[in-house]
Amino acid sequence: MLHILFLFSLILSSSSISNAADFCVADLMAAEGPAGFPCKAAAKVTADDFVYTALAKSGNTTNIISAAVSPAFVAQFPGVNGLGISIARLDLAPGGVIPFHTHPGASELLLCLHGHILAGFVSSANKVYIKKVGKGEIMVFPQGLLHFQVNAGKNSATAFVSFSSPDPGLQILDYALFGNDLPSKLVETVTFLDDAQVKKLKGVLGGTG
Amino acid sequence: MLHILFLFSLILSSSSISNAADFCVADLMAAEGPAGFPCKAAAKVTADDFVYTALAKSGNTTNIISAAVSPAFVAQFPGVNGLGISIARLDLAPGGVIPFHTHPGASELLLCLHGHILAGFVSSANKVYIKKVGKGEIMVFPQGLLHFQVNAGKNSATAFVSFSSPDPGLQILDYALFGNDLPSKLVETVTFLDDAQVKKLKGVLGGTG
Amino acid sequence: MLHILFLFSLILSSSSISNAADFCVADLMAAEGPAGFPCKAAAKVTADDFVYTALAKSGNTTNIISAAVSPAFVAQFPGVNGLGISIARLDLAPGGVIPFHTHPGASELLLCLHGHILAGFVSSANKVYIKKVGKGEIMVFPQGLLHFQVNAGKNSATAFVSFSSPDPGLQILDYALFGNDLPSKLVETVTFLDDAQVKKLKGVLGGTG
Amino acid sequence: MLHILFLFSLILSSSSISNAADFCVADLMAAEGPAGFPCKAAAKVTADDFVYTALAKSGNTTNIISAAVSPAFVAQFPGVNGLGISIARLDLAPGGVIPFHTHPGASELLLCLHGHILAGFVSSANKVYIKKVGKGEIMVFPQGLLHFQVNAGKNSATAFVSFSSPDPGLQILDYALFGNDLPSKLVETVTFLDDAQVKKLKGVLGGTG
Amino acid sequence: MLHILFLFSLILSSSSISNAADFCVADLMAAEGPAGFPCKAAAKVTADDFVYTALAKSGNTTNIISAAVSPAFVAQFPGVNGLGISIARLDLAPGGVIPFHTHPGASELLLCLHGHILAGFVSSANKVYIKKVGKGEIMVFPQGLLHFQVNAGKNSATAFVSFSSPDPGLQILDYALFGNDLPSKLVETVTFLDDAQVKKLKGVLGGTG
Amino acid sequence: MLHILFLFSLILSSSSISNAADFCVADLMAAEGPAGFPCKAAAKVTADDFVYTALAKSGNTTNIISAAVSPAFVAQFPGVNGLGISIARLDLAPGGVIPFHTHPGASELLLCLHGHILAGFVSSANKVYIKKVGKGEIMVFPQGLLHFQVNAGKNSATAFVSFSSPDPGLQILDYALFGNDLPSKLVETVTFLDDAQVKKLKGVLGGTG
Repeated sequence: MLHILFLFSLILSSSSISNAADFCVADLMAAEGPAGFPCKAAAKVTADDFVYTALAKSGNTTNIISAAVSPAFVAQFPGVNGLGISIARLDLAPGGVIPFHTHPGASELLLCLHGHILAGFVSSANKVYIKKVGKGEIMVFPQGLLHFQVNAGKNSATAFVSFSSPDPGLQILDYALFGNDLPSKLVETVTFLDDAQVKKLKGVLGGTG
Repeated sequence: MLHILFLFSLILSSSSISNAADFCVADLMAAEGPAGFPCKAAAKVTADDFVYTALAKSGNTTNIISAAVSPAFVAQFPGVNGLGISIARLDLAPGGVIPFHTHPGASELLLCLHGHILAGFVSSANKVYIKKVGKGEIMVFPQGLLHFQVNAGKNSATAFVSFSSPDPGLQILDYALFGNDLPSKLVETVTFLDDAQVKKLKGVLGGTG
Repeated sequence: MLHILFLFSLILSSSSISNAADFCVADLMAAEGPAGFPCKAAAKVTADDFVYTALAKSGNTTNIISAAVSPAFVAQFPGVNGLGISIARLDLAPGGVIPFHTHPGASELLLCLHGHILAGFVSSANKVYIKKVGKGEIMVFPQGLLHFQVNAGKNSATAFVSFSSPDPGLQILDYALFGNDLPSKLVETVTFLDDAQVKKLKGVLGGTG
Repeated sequence: MLHILFLFSLILSSSSISNAADFCVADLMAAEGPAGFPCKAAAKVTADDFVYTALAKSGNTTNIISAAVSPAFVAQFPGVNGLGISIARLDLAPGGVIPFHTHPGASELLLCLHGHILAGFVSSANKVYIKKVGKGEIMVFPQGLLHFQVNAGKNSATAFVSFSSPDPGLQILDYALFGNDLPSKLVETVTFLDDAQVKKLKGVLGGTG
Repeated sequence: MLHILFLFSLILSSSSISNAADFCVADLMAAEGPAGFPCKAAAKVTADDFVYTALAKSGNTTNIISAAVSPAFVAQFPGVNGLGISIARLDLAPGGVIPFHTHPGASELLLCLHGHILAGFVSSANKVYIKKVGKGEIMVFPQGLLHFQVNAGKNSATAFVSFSSPDPGLQILDYALFGNDLPSKLVETVTFLDDAQVKKLKGVLGGTG
Repeated sequence: MLHILFLFSLILSSSSISNAADFCVADLMAAEGPAGFPCKAAAKVTADDFVYTALAKSGNTTNIISAAVSPAFVAQFPGVNGLGISIARLDLAPGGVIPFHTHPGASELLLCLHGHILAGFVSSANKVYIKKVGKGEIMVFPQGLLHFQVNAGKNSATAFVSFSSPDPGLQILDYALFGNDLPSKLVETVTFLDDAQVKKLKGVLGGTG
């Protein structure tokens, strides 16, 4: 009996040097690389590293979009590092809107939990794919394409959105255009928007220039 | 004005030959390849291809595991083809169990929607990571490792599980061991299980040999 | 001597069944899959399949953006299928602008050939990276992020942009927002733009709704 | 003559900063990431880093499975880091068995060197693929599926198994079920095995709970 | 009991539409794509598809290199399609040589079975890594680099070489330089070899021009 | 107004921990891994990190090949780290030659800027694909295959070559054969070249042994 224990212990102890065969919980304090963060030492990994509870609470929707996005990406949930998946919670109060945005690094799969959500994306061929989804229905948004979610009912709505990457990125169109120091003149040149429009939204979103 | 329309039409019409730059809705009638199914013609793709509604209904849990798994993999939901993501619904009646299984081709992220679920996985290093999750909590299961989900409450529980592949595969341990024509003697040899145990479960699960 | 010829002929003829070990010139008439087009039969492939000459001619910049984009993606240049690379030519007349756009499936590397180009991109963290490049200078734009190129000189400018995919996709912001049937009201909701602004640009870009 | 030497030296010295273009011998002392270990400094790499001799010796089969598995994964053979391949040696004494197991991160290709081996795997569709292979014959086992190897002859047998990853992982079914602290009651719930059976094997394999 | 059978049958029958979750045996008659061949219909796949016996026999070494290469790539062994691995057999008579060659699409892991083999590769940094390996010893050759194997003993030698791709490709230097219609003058220009040398080897290897 | 600012600031600040969702400028002082270099801290990244100007100047072609290769790989241009693309400049004086070479880690796309270049590659099937390209014409060379570029005109020629990797590697055939300490006798054995030829080129290229 000791033989088999000894044999497998040998295998397992050597392979346990390299726990990345199975998983690679992110060491967020270490410098990230193109494939993600270095792994936390296997000996320190516990079940808690694979569980994330902060999404149980709805986000604060008392804001001008009447909506909240709560991510469980690798930066919040280190257990997904290297595993090709992550998730976020969307809360939409009545009238809530997740404005046009893209995820440069992942496709997204939306699951509507309650309420009704009007969601859509636009393809490279400039075609719009739009649909209202209700409780238990799902919709997929291909990687890198502009998409939005709007509360389509009179009550609040909640959805969870899964991503095909632990670090999908998030580029919110209005913030990219109006929420930084990109000069108004240049914004107008590359968007064809009017000067008054650009300056108005820069004012709202804290942009300068 | 016609100039810009003409210019972009040119670009868009040529790139629309190749809609796979954006997405590749599966043509399930065509022969699959290692990367997935050939794409449905772009001109025939509609918003409906990106929405799946069958998971809105709970699965039938009137069975011996008191549970149901309803997949939205590429075979059920062709819109996820090539997008690196899919999802499934788990329904667990009181006492319900999703028995030990693996997904050879994907990591899994569980989102508990109501009830309590005791879930766990075992690593290559033979260590168990087990945790009880409740409403709105998430847990991740690394690719290819044995894992299970058990209803940990007195009422029914529901979860949605996302996968890092449109086609994660599903190998249910009991069916792999006892639900086919793998000879009892051989099962016993490669599992160390007793003959009576193997034959009993082969009887239950429809195995022969 | 015949022996070695026979030996290697054997190896080479069998491997020539599968020329995808080396390359996979697209058969554009066949249905595309997530990894690209099926390969043209090896016996029919010639040197011409690996050369593309249409980019030698400047694009027509007599349009409202005073610019032209001429792609050599897999749809135009089947030789790049499966090889992880493609290219396009940018011509910018004085005042020419390649407006804000993204490539959902590739990073881009711009090489300025003559003139001066002001180029920039915006990150997920909403930060702007902007720079003027001149002849022989290069700039890289990470996958999926909004970016633009503007003629920064008094004369025409030309650039070639390489992509990390044979099929990078191209989503032009203005066309995505204003050049299709996405209802004006919805555009306004998900962009915070004013109604007049949206309707004006829908008029310019041929959008409806 | 000096010119060409100078020219190429320039190229080569700059590219030698980044030897990962070619290879990336693992620095096992550094923290691993999702794609493998950081590279040993190029200047310290020698031919010895690419050679591994420990598999020349047969493993010790004096144990209850009458078999031994000797891996040359990245943890044992740092030269394979990042190269997408590794190998292991299987020794099976008469009656020897490599019990049901999976590799979560790689496909496996078995080469039988002497003796006869009965090998098989079970698919997601619950179908069994089983075959006896002899000297010089090969069999492939797809990633993540349960498979086994049994000595099918009267004498000892030896095989080498290659993997499509430098770090394939190894989950041995019996150890996952019975060789850790997963409570017996829970094992029974998620496997349908009888209490006596579970406790018996926990006793054999050193499990607790 | 019927319930569970019905439940799982439902899951399994739908997933069996898409057997590529597990494997994708090549349909060699169909057109290949960048990721490999389309899959043989799951219903027609048998255990024989995963076994290849032709490498059991040594190759014919009665030729000027006194050596033979017998591949089990996807073209010979369709079972490896999509699985990221393949293998070949090397037979070297006394004095046998596998001349300088590269595999553009895979790393290689050599296992010496008997005799002694002197093997080596050259890095991008122009450094030589060379070593003699004996029975049971392994050596790895990084993807795309020139390497060779020479019988280093007085008797015959045999090795099996695994690859990190089902279709690694094989470019034999002498054949690339001298065994085709690349004009002698051009060969000389791009290799610095003398005219007499080029013409001599073109004569030996059947090249023209 | 503060609400939305607060909301998005929250999202953006947390995601800015992980800028690799967007890009990963190489920290060349840190140890590289199989996927590239660790990322420079996001806070220190500026637009300059994404621009490289050294290729604006032609390389020095006063050498025996009358040509120069100036790379902008990750080691020279850290901004391309993890982005799947890089570029190099080729200058060919009259009579200039980029001799036979391979890139083990990338496909290459050549853009001829002025002059005429005769370029070609050889496939695994030993077939030659050769073509003369002029200004504005492009040619693609599949990963890992031997290829060359020769000035085909009477004046100088310039090209830029893009790669499908930030770190394509570069193995120059003559240097691999003759520019190191690989013993002459062994070179002759694995290339079939004559002793005098090998020694002559070893002399020219600084090889020993």
